[in-house]
Amino acid sequence: MPHADLLVDARWIVPVEPHATVLEHHSLAVSGGRIAAILSPAERAHWQAGETVSLPSHVLLPGLINLHGHSAMTLLRGYADDLALMDWLTNHIWPAEGRHVRDDFVFDGTLLAMAEMIRSGTTTINDMYFFHGAVARAGLQAGLRTFVGCTILEFPTNYAACADEYLQKALAERQDYLGEERVTFTLAPHAPYTVSDDTFRKIVTTAEQADMLVHCHIHETAGEVADSLRDHGVRPLARLAGLGLLSPRLTAAHMVHVDDGDLELAARYGISVAHNPTSNMKLASGIAPVSRMLDAGINVGIGTDGAASNNKLDMLADTRMTALLAKVGTLDPTAVPAATALRMATLNGARALGIDDRVGSLETGKQFDAIALNLDCVETAPAFDPISHLVYAAGREQVEEVWVAGERLLQAGRLTTLDLPVLKATAAEWRERIAARN
Amino acid sequence: MPHADLLVDARWIVPVEPHATVLEHHSLAVSGGRIAAILSPAERAHWQAGETVSLPSHVLLPGLINLHGHSAMTLLRGYADDLALMDWLTNHIWPAEGRHVRDDFVFDGTLLAMAEMIRSGTTTINDMYFFHGAVARAGLQAGLRTFVGCTILEFPTNYAACADEYLQKALAERQDYLGEERVTFTLAPHAPYTVSDDTFRKIVTTAEQADMLVHCHIHETAGEVADSLRDHGVRPLARLAGLGLLSPRLTAAHMVHVDDGDLELAARYGISVAHNPTSNMKLASGIAPVSRMLDAGINVGIGTDGAASNNKLDMLADTRMTALLAKVGTLDPTAVPAATALRMATLNGARALGIDDRVGSLETGKQFDAIALNLDCVETAPAFDPISHLVYAAGREQVEEVWVAGERLLQAGRLTTLDLPVLKATAAEWRERIAARN
Repeated sequence: MPHADLLVDARWIVPVEPHATVLEHHSLAVSGGRIAAILSPAERAHWQAGETVSLPSHVLLPGLINLHGHSAMTLLRGYADDLALMDWLTNHIWPAEGRHVRDDFVFDGTLLAMAEMIRSGTTTINDMYFFHGAVARAGLQAGLRTFVGCTILEFPTNYAACADEYLQKALAERQDYLGEERVTFTLAPHAPYTVSDDTFRKIVTTAEQADMLVHCHIHETAGEVADSLRDHGVRPLARLAGLGLLSPRLTAAHMVHVDDGDLELAARYGISVAHNPTSNMKLASGIAPVSRMLDAGINVGIGTDGAASNNKLDMLADTRMTALLAKVGTLDPTAVPAATALRMATLNGARALGIDDRVGSLETGKQFDAIALNLDCVETAPAFDPISHLVYAAGREQVEEVWVAGERLLQAGRLTTLDLPVLKATAAEWRERIAARN
Repeated sequence: MPHADLLVDARWIVPVEPHATVLEHHSLAVSGGRIAAILSPAERAHWQAGETVSLPSHVLLPGLINLHGHSAMTLLRGYADDLALMDWLTNHIWPAEGRHVRDDFVFDGTLLAMAEMIRSGTTTINDMYFFHGAVARAGLQAGLRTFVGCTILEFPTNYAACADEYLQKALAERQDYLGEERVTFTLAPHAPYTVSDDTFRKIVTTAEQADMLVHCHIHETAGEVADSLRDHGVRPLARLAGLGLLSPRLTAAHMVHVDDGDLELAARYGISVAHNPTSNMKLASGIAPVSRMLDAGINVGIGTDGAASNNKLDMLADTRMTALLAKVGTLDPTAVPAATALRMATLNGARALGIDDRVGSLETGKQFDAIALNLDCVETAPAFDPISHLVYAAGREQVEEVWVAGERLLQAGRLTTLDLPVLKATAAEWRERIAARN
């Protein structure tokens, strides 16, 4: 009789691969943190397990992958809204960051973000910020798969003074976490307009030598493209292509203002795109042409961006927003159907991070990174189609179970690795310190 | 010593009027279902009450007003998505409605909708559907303020065969509910493209004689405008102006495709607009120019539309969407700031329904239609600005208290008038019946 560590019996399983598939009354066997089998009721009868989890009104699916965020900025959630981008950055966000962003701010803010992300079904975060040891420690405590993006730019911040120092500190902090299964350091040149050609070249070389991913804001605003044409004579993506940055290692966040040439470059070099629909709406950046990207064969995942420009770290909400914004952006109601949006939020994110052989779908042999939503709510009644409900109707409060590599991070709605009262008290303390300097 | 039926002590009160105001640690006194006073801590010390409700980490605000919906369509939530509009209507929605829409479908579906709406902070619904007695009975059971829109069109449905019959049945059903404080029947010509000039004229006369509001889909799609130019030689709004329909009695749902002349007409006649951002996105109708409407002095409220095209009846989500969509639609991040979106979802909705003297803001003398959200969640931590959090960060699951005219419909997150297990079981039965005929 086959034996598993864990058997999960679910009303519905949406494995994402095969695409748009719904399995009813199936079970999933987990051993050693990996998916051992996906079982029909008849097959299930032959299995034994050390632990059984019954999800009688739930849909089980791969964990969501937040492909772009600045987790620690939760501590600035709602601190300044409804402002023009440069006013927002120069008069509010950057001064507050300058006053407060240190190791403790980043650790506390990242942990707060991770609680919110686990509670809304995220299992992997592709982050980008400063004080990378703090991000890594928070990720290890929370249990999320954490891609620690080490921001690199030419300007001084509290973390470093110049591009070389950003890079050196990033590599030094990375050493401390090599060997940690759930922590991966990435190189994160901030944006084409804040990073020089020389620094980009150094990042390309470093990424190849150390086998690291690259994460960069690209083509977020129309102004960025215009400035590049003025200063460099080419659009940002073409400049980056010339510098060697474009490759499957690269995840380009935003890519709102792109023309056919940009899409051709993105497809030819196999870069991935992190689409941030809510942030692009709130900051009035524009509507990224996600349907055209997908049609061009570009791998597009979804991110929340930071809490200062969203203000939720809720991948369910941004998966819904991806589908809705694509439709109104193209005036085509068939654009980005629910199953496509869900694939973007899971398997496409995994592919961008080079871990689609291990996570992103529920397939035999993959890590058991999975979440379960309870659809037994008036908000998701009646239930004709769980994929539709996941994308269009369900809320973060319906996420009840979260596993990463078989470790249960959320159990019947309760966090197992993080302490909510402590997180809220810490956030309240930061509120006092930050508001006092207003 | 002044005495109230109820004293509510709240961490924050957002009264909506005065605009963008936040009162900290204030209290609200309620007597006879009305707001008797709003009290500072010093004033509060002098008051006594039969009942006290403590909301130590909550924000208290006016109940949300859902200015456009088809409540009963919850029973078709997720039944068909991601389809072109006419395919969706003619091959999916209309056939299902033809098979199933009777009094019981409307009662069960409306009650399900009302449970969802109360749980997400709605206190008034401006509905439009068929079998009006069923809608009114559901409203009375739920306790919501229910505006029962009596659909009128030239085509037969299960409810009536021709425009005259729709109108006569509407007026007959209305008689049964005259005198009910929370039920108001309105005349709801479906749309310019489904209602003749003669019928519109009869509706105008009837509305004036019976002092009824009018609720109509107008300028939802570009095709509707083009067809009107072809068939009538004028745009729909101009045709309706000529027929006498435009007045402060009218709430025009959608108004997506409008030019300067349309806005001038809307402002001159003092009509209200029900903006449905999510539905307009999901059906790819377009982006209504809400900022231009507000600048033109037009009263704009917010609606969810039906669950078949949203698929949530969550006014918090659509208030957020209103702010976000306005920003990306104008490429101006200062468009529709949070306080404006909240005003649209409350006081503007009340004004459209002619009840802004009674509800829509927390002011002395008004009915106590109010909701409270608990902001003591990691998702809304830290709390710099409760108005920002209400619009951008809070979720429906944070709504814990709902009152209509002083009656508590949601108490510590539990419905007092509706039975969740019964509602879910009934929805599951409808699921079987509807799916069986697919």
